[in-house]
Amino acid sequence: MSELKNDRFLKALMREPVDCTPVWMMRQAGRYLPEYRATRAKAGGFMDLCKNAELACEVTLQPLERYPLDAAILFSDILTVPDAMGLGLYFETGEGPRFRKTVRNQQDVDALPVIDGDADLGYVMNAVRTIRRELNGSVPLIGFSGSPWTLATYMVEGGSSKDFRHAKAMAFDKPELMHQLLGKLADSVISYLNAQINAGAQVVQIFDTWGGALSESAYQEFSLQYMQRIVKGLIKEREGRTVPVIIFTKNGGLWLESIADSGAHALGLDWTIDIGKARQRVGNKVALQGNMDPTMLYASPKAIRNEVGRILASYGNGPGHIFNLGHGITPEVDPANAGVFIESVHELSARYHSG
Amino acid sequence: MSELKNDRFLKALMREPVDCTPVWMMRQAGRYLPEYRATRAKAGGFMDLCKNAELACEVTLQPLERYPLDAAILFSDILTVPDAMGLGLYFETGEGPRFRKTVRNQQDVDALPVIDGDADLGYVMNAVRTIRRELNGSVPLIGFSGSPWTLATYMVEGGSSKDFRHAKAMAFDKPELMHQLLGKLADSVISYLNAQINAGAQVVQIFDTWGGALSESAYQEFSLQYMQRIVKGLIKEREGRTVPVIIFTKNGGLWLESIADSGAHALGLDWTIDIGKARQRVGNKVALQGNMDPTMLYASPKAIRNEVGRILASYGNGPGHIFNLGHGITPEVDPANAGVFIESVHELSARYHSG
Repeated sequence: MSELKNDRFLKALMREPVDCTPVWMMRQAGRYLPEYRATRAKAGGFMDLCKNAELACEVTLQPLERYPLDAAILFSDILTVPDAMGLGLYFETGEGPRFRKTVRNQQDVDALPVIDGDADLGYVMNAVRTIRRELNGSVPLIGFSGSPWTLATYMVEGGSSKDFRHAKAMAFDKPELMHQLLGKLADSVISYLNAQINAGAQVVQIFDTWGGALSESAYQEFSLQYMQRIVKGLIKEREGRTVPVIIFTKNGGLWLESIADSGAHALGLDWTIDIGKARQRVGNKVALQGNMDPTMLYASPKAIRNEVGRILASYGNGPGHIFNLGHGITPEVDPANAGVFIESVHELSARYHSG
Repeated sequence: MSELKNDRFLKALMREPVDCTPVWMMRQAGRYLPEYRATRAKAGGFMDLCKNAELACEVTLQPLERYPLDAAILFSDILTVPDAMGLGLYFETGEGPRFRKTVRNQQDVDALPVIDGDADLGYVMNAVRTIRRELNGSVPLIGFSGSPWTLATYMVEGGSSKDFRHAKAMAFDKPELMHQLLGKLADSVISYLNAQINAGAQVVQIFDTWGGALSESAYQEFSLQYMQRIVKGLIKEREGRTVPVIIFTKNGGLWLESIADSGAHALGLDWTIDIGKARQRVGNKVALQGNMDPTMLYASPKAIRNEVGRILASYGNGPGHIFNLGHGITPEVDPANAGVFIESVHELSARYHSG
């Protein structure tokens, strides 16, 4: 493997000095880009795009051709894991993801296999290898997975949900059954992420999209505990470098201290928390990734630039910050505004890294 | 006016000693009750029910006939205020609230009147007077309003929204225009809540349902500031008693200290924050209302009772706690489970009030 031409992102994750704050965007390969929409139309459905290594690579690289981003992220979906477990993922137009089977009782949980990343999700590993080769050392590649709790909500509900009533009722009434499900998911995610790392992912992020829908005690028991187990089970070093792990619990701002104790190298922050206060709370334990409101990209270039400046000032001097949005970029954003965001981060952050 | 037979709720709001923790439920007059569904069918549409004082009174009292609740809450909707401003509120089946007009530019904001609670929302005051008379001193009556920011999101978007992109883009790009809108809303809400207090509401709650969708700095500027202005403008005492104000910012757990400095007597908490930690953070400044996950009501009676016990233990000894759900009760809940919740609060809380 060649040396990295741009290792700002990896350095910032390890809280090492950088020349300016690195930046990437969750869902940066996405519908806001006309070239993405063209490739997706060519592929057919969304999952066809995920399963075709060449096309998944094509869309992964598209935002890097437009913008001076400091990282690439594998194009895939968090629901590939329950799909590989046999639940039958499909997408209804305008309805979001659905599963043909749900997981509601002991028999359903018993029937679920623990998946093997290489054997059961080979198409993802093909995509990782293809992307890594095509990146050719320009920037690091991020692999990812959903958190066990987040995956469990989709599996129990059979798709998206507003209040997670079936998943929560299982956790509250049959905690042992939920723990069996989460255990199988955690072991599957460990295998899945390790396979991604072996295939070339240099960083991994765990998306805990729905951990923040729990009470603090339920979060500790049903979400954080399993992310800690995953962090422990991951390959620590590859190609002579640490493989950093980022945990992103949306709406997890109240629980930063305990997430920082999980063993992860970095925490993803949504936009509701002030990043300077977050830094005070976690000290030097972890790097912080975030946290501009993605809706800010609907505002003017001037407002975007001001907000980038405000967040940089709040974080303050020194390393350990990776700039990102507080959630994925949305489909109606003008790509020019994403460009303003990314360039503002590089330009306005240099002064915080001069010492 | 007769003396109150049950003043536990008012005492707890003032952090005065009580025999057990008072309890009510947000949306306690709602679709989970078959008697509510019957009255609503009789009324026609949802707004017909709000506008008919006798029927609004009937549904307000229904949960009090079933359960030993410590407060009644006016049956109405937060969107009565923008409706009175001329936006034309209507409900699409399964789609939530919509407005015929939206507020997007200077002309739209200029055209909005500041409403007068008595003159423009007389049907609400009729309902308050009718309910107060029928309660006959059994428990206190809560009046309410949406927060200016929350109302503004519906007015700018034209209804519900997932990401509030138009409202936020107005706040980010045209902050002065947004401040004009919020100022008119704050003045309208002051008049509206004071009219409710004069008509007989003994407590008022401000529902800031969408303040938690903002960043901390945007929350301070666009939501909290206007709730402070409202608290300052409200009638302080009526019938020889303080009229306590409750502020409920959903997903506001990160900002409790500043909400506690707003002048409100109590803070509503959603279920994501541990109530014991919330109490440590706000000290003796305010009472706390909350905070069981409403989804817990889909679990078994045993699980509900355990969770009530856990929250009571987390709050600990002494006054200043009003038990509630962390959000409104949902339509599919079994009314028997709501009963278990309410009885568990009274039964399990007595030991925390013995000293």
